[in-house]
Amino acid sequence: MSENQNNQRKIVEPSILSGFMELLPKEQMIMTRMTDIIKKTFESYGFIPLDTPVLEKSEVLLAKSGGETAKQVYRFNKGDSDIAMRFDLTVPLARYVAQHYGELTFPFRRYHIGKVYRGEKPQKGRFREFYQCDIDIIGNGSLGIVNDAEIVSVIFSTFKALNIGSFKIMINNRKLLNGYFEYLQIENTVETLRIVDKIDKIGRDNVKKELIKEVNLTEDTAENVLKFLDNSGSIADILEGLKAYDIPNDKFKEGLAELEAVCENIKALGVSEEYFTVNLKIARGLDYYTGTVYETMLCDYPQLGSICSGGRYDELASNYTKQSLPGVGISIGLSRLFYQLNEVGAIQYDNRCTPTEILFIPMSDTVQYTLEKATEFRKAGYAVEVYMNDGKMAKKLTYANKLGIPYVAIIGGDEMTQGVFKIKDMESGQQYEVSTPEDAANIVKK
Amino acid sequence: MSENQNNQRKIVEPSILSGFMELLPKEQMIMTRMTDIIKKTFESYGFIPLDTPVLEKSEVLLAKSGGETAKQVYRFNKGDSDIAMRFDLTVPLARYVAQHYGELTFPFRRYHIGKVYRGEKPQKGRFREFYQCDIDIIGNGSLGIVNDAEIVSVIFSTFKALNIGSFKIMINNRKLLNGYFEYLQIENTVETLRIVDKIDKIGRDNVKKELIKEVNLTEDTAENVLKFLDNSGSIADILEGLKAYDIPNDKFKEGLAELEAVCENIKALGVSEEYFTVNLKIARGLDYYTGTVYETMLCDYPQLGSICSGGRYDELASNYTKQSLPGVGISIGLSRLFYQLNEVGAIQYDNRCTPTEILFIPMSDTVQYTLEKATEFRKAGYAVEVYMNDGKMAKKLTYANKLGIPYVAIIGGDEMTQGVFKIKDMESGQQYEVSTPEDAANIVKK
Repeated sequence: MSENQNNQRKIVEPSILSGFMELLPKEQMIMTRMTDIIKKTFESYGFIPLDTPVLEKSEVLLAKSGGETAKQVYRFNKGDSDIAMRFDLTVPLARYVAQHYGELTFPFRRYHIGKVYRGEKPQKGRFREFYQCDIDIIGNGSLGIVNDAEIVSVIFSTFKALNIGSFKIMINNRKLLNGYFEYLQIENTVETLRIVDKIDKIGRDNVKKELIKEVNLTEDTAENVLKFLDNSGSIADILEGLKAYDIPNDKFKEGLAELEAVCENIKALGVSEEYFTVNLKIARGLDYYTGTVYETMLCDYPQLGSICSGGRYDELASNYTKQSLPGVGISIGLSRLFYQLNEVGAIQYDNRCTPTEILFIPMSDTVQYTLEKATEFRKAGYAVEVYMNDGKMAKKLTYANKLGIPYVAIIGGDEMTQGVFKIKDMESGQQYEVSTPEDAANIVKK
Repeated sequence: MSENQNNQRKIVEPSILSGFMELLPKEQMIMTRMTDIIKKTFESYGFIPLDTPVLEKSEVLLAKSGGETAKQVYRFNKGDSDIAMRFDLTVPLARYVAQHYGELTFPFRRYHIGKVYRGEKPQKGRFREFYQCDIDIIGNGSLGIVNDAEIVSVIFSTFKALNIGSFKIMINNRKLLNGYFEYLQIENTVETLRIVDKIDKIGRDNVKKELIKEVNLTEDTAENVLKFLDNSGSIADILEGLKAYDIPNDKFKEGLAELEAVCENIKALGVSEEYFTVNLKIARGLDYYTGTVYETMLCDYPQLGSICSGGRYDELASNYTKQSLPGVGISIGLSRLFYQLNEVGAIQYDNRCTPTEILFIPMSDTVQYTLEKATEFRKAGYAVEVYMNDGKMAKKLTYANKLGIPYVAIIGGDEMTQGVFKIKDMESGQQYEVSTPEDAANIVKK
């Protein structure tokens, strides 16, 4: 034990790794509430919870990845195992669906809220450990286009419930772009897409330059591509405009039909044009999207970029199975979103640092009575805390104020004898006499 | 892109690392519900959510640990960083409280539900990645003994809410044991405690042998220790018995007074003797406990061992700060508990594999109407899923049955025209006509 005592005398400076997020109670309360809201919304659409290991076999997790992703992965050996930390929730989903194919019911609708890891260069708003909140719908062989519309409804309901200001979901369809590029006889459609996707970042002129330089488009063709992307206005206008093009390319026609169906069904799901639009400039960098693609902007904070993105992919799990498993899904990068909202001052703090709704403060002779009362109130659904430590009353009230506890009840001898005590609304200062949890129903606001 | 196409042809066998838990939807639904219940119960007592990084600096995380723990830790380098994965939630709490000391309000009551990592030898019911659900109350300089009673109330409420059968919380106080050992003039009290803690595992005789061999007790002293541990009966009996000992040792007296106060306050918190008792044999292996200690047994499955343990410690963060931060807390090893309950058949499955309460099945001409209805029902608080894929009706109903969706509504042209459709209770087969979510209030059981 002498070794132990020596250790206790050596103080190690407490700190965390750079690029990792850790919150104080006031912020954590908001973050936890946001997570709860997202979970509840996802479940209200019947998405099934999934929780896969954070650690996976490197050969499995990195079956496809190369380049940048592989470099960022936290990878290490322990014993005989070559281990990698997951860098997103999509690859583990693909692995899971392939591995448990025979045990799952399709379409498989799952949500997953969990931490992922990327050893990126730390920078403002970029974290090495961060939450992703994903939903995906995976079909067995096929998956109806209505699913693509439902995803927009889920995004809509989620951000409405999160109450973080007005937002716009932008949809597009890769088949439209690729079909049009084919029609223009552009050979490298993948690279063209990648360049086009940067238009909001680098601007129209630079995209044009890159298209000419990198994929050898003629000035005319590049101009045609840019003109195509410029299509804007109401959804009806854009769809009209696309139809008017009358492009003799099957992929284009398919994309247009899909986009039209998706838009119609989104409206049926109660999402108005105030909240979604078609934006032909949305291409998404990732190469596995094959149809509908999504991005979501906060109207008051366009500088945050897309806060929720995703799309349709034909083959989710082609690295793990020969089964055809088309899917559609989106991801919310919650840690980053929280950080950004906080930075721009878009988070409304109510000073609440605890789930406690009512703080019961006993006197020295009423501790047991107060504990009984607290149990009674908890059973009725209130979050109740009893202040159980010695000290002056002022200190106890300071505690309530510092934590932003909305209601306080001081329970002394008289209150115990009479079975009646006062609940004080700490904001208004008003006091209300109660004796049972039922009495508090109209006093304690949830 | 040809590289990409090649990759797609190479199939990697999907599998996970051994010793890691991954559940299918039916099990995951239960696990998620259990987590939700624990979270809600913890919050009803005003515990504040905390979420620290899974990865920490090795020098900080392993400031104290040595021996077995250090060997099990997942530790690796990335760039210049020596990184370790957390192996419990207590050390990160100590680091957090020391680091943010000036920014926290004390007593600091936090809960943390998160994954921890230990590279143990994989064996039945032992996982290398598992959930711990912890609560702790940390005082600044001091912490009233009533807190120790509240912890029992939280354990009680949690397992009542989890509804996993009858259980018993066993409490003891280390000061009692150490005081008695001092009185018996036993020198190595730490090692004596460690041996005594094994009594239920290795039996009375083996403990006696070890006490004689390992800590050089005389046969008489060893017998005295064992006799002391045998005190049993009602709580009043045990406390009476301890008082009758009348040991002239301050530590013993302090421990007895604390134990008595804790028992009284536990009763005031509405926990009856059916659910808790004093058990002098509970010592806990870990050396940092200094007062009250807890274990919890499932009465029908004593073979599972303690499913929730913890205790009081004088110095939480002595490796990170000179501040005196006494605390009391417990931990539920949720992954292990779930696995064990599953193994012994103690989990009641209701065949539910999804949060969906009602599955709406449209006909081809009623998709949009059905989507509208689904949105209406979701707004009213129902978890509603629309079956959005082609196929025969039998296939759609099979989907509902496989997922254990409790209610199904088929919405065809007539239903759309009349604005009335039938919700079928899939268990009873009964059908109910509804047109609004309000109509469903008495039909769809939550």
